[in-house]
Amino acid sequence: MDNNIVYIGSKPVMNYCTAVLQVMANNDSVRLMARGRAISHAVDVAEITRNRFLTNLVVDSIDIDTEELESEKGEPRNVSNITITLKK
Amino acid sequence: MDNNIVYIGSKPVMNYCTAVLQVMANNDSVRLMARGRAISHAVDVAEITRNRFLTNLVVDSIDIDTEELESEKGEPRNVSNITITLKK
Repeated sequence: MDNNIVYIGSKPVMNYCTAVLQVMANNDSVRLMARGRAISHAVDVAEITRNRFLTNLVVDSIDIDTEELESEKGEPRNVSNITITLKK
Repeated sequence: MDNNIVYIGSKPVMNYCTAVLQVMANNDSVRLMARGRAISHAVDVAEITRNRFLTNLVVDSIDIDTEELESEKGEPRNVSNITITLKK
């Protein structure tokens, strides 16, 4: 069931748009997941995909949450994340 | 009606948390608005406020959109934005 997830990182935004198009070729929905600074990229990917490539897509839901990750020094660090679900 | 908006930019996240607390002292809801790279800060402000300062706050809605702004060279440029509404 998790084959419709695209993890958004710091690569060029168009790479993720391509990944979303690939997912949507075989699914009715796609979930964009991102943490920390990549959160703004996830919003960019959602908006560019909807406005330019798949104008029939709508935002189904947007959820935000906090995860406790370990920093490089081994200390706990709270990091925000976002999940944007787009569907046909 | 627009006195419950906090615009999120590139200042330290805690500044915006303080602004949210100020708004919530006199309102039942607050709207966090951010553009571009500040989008991830808006999610941080929402999460930190909810987890640390006002644990009775819930995410009422999250909306994303695209605005056409003018770049420094006078060219049109699409910028994503987010509006996170928190309420008691």
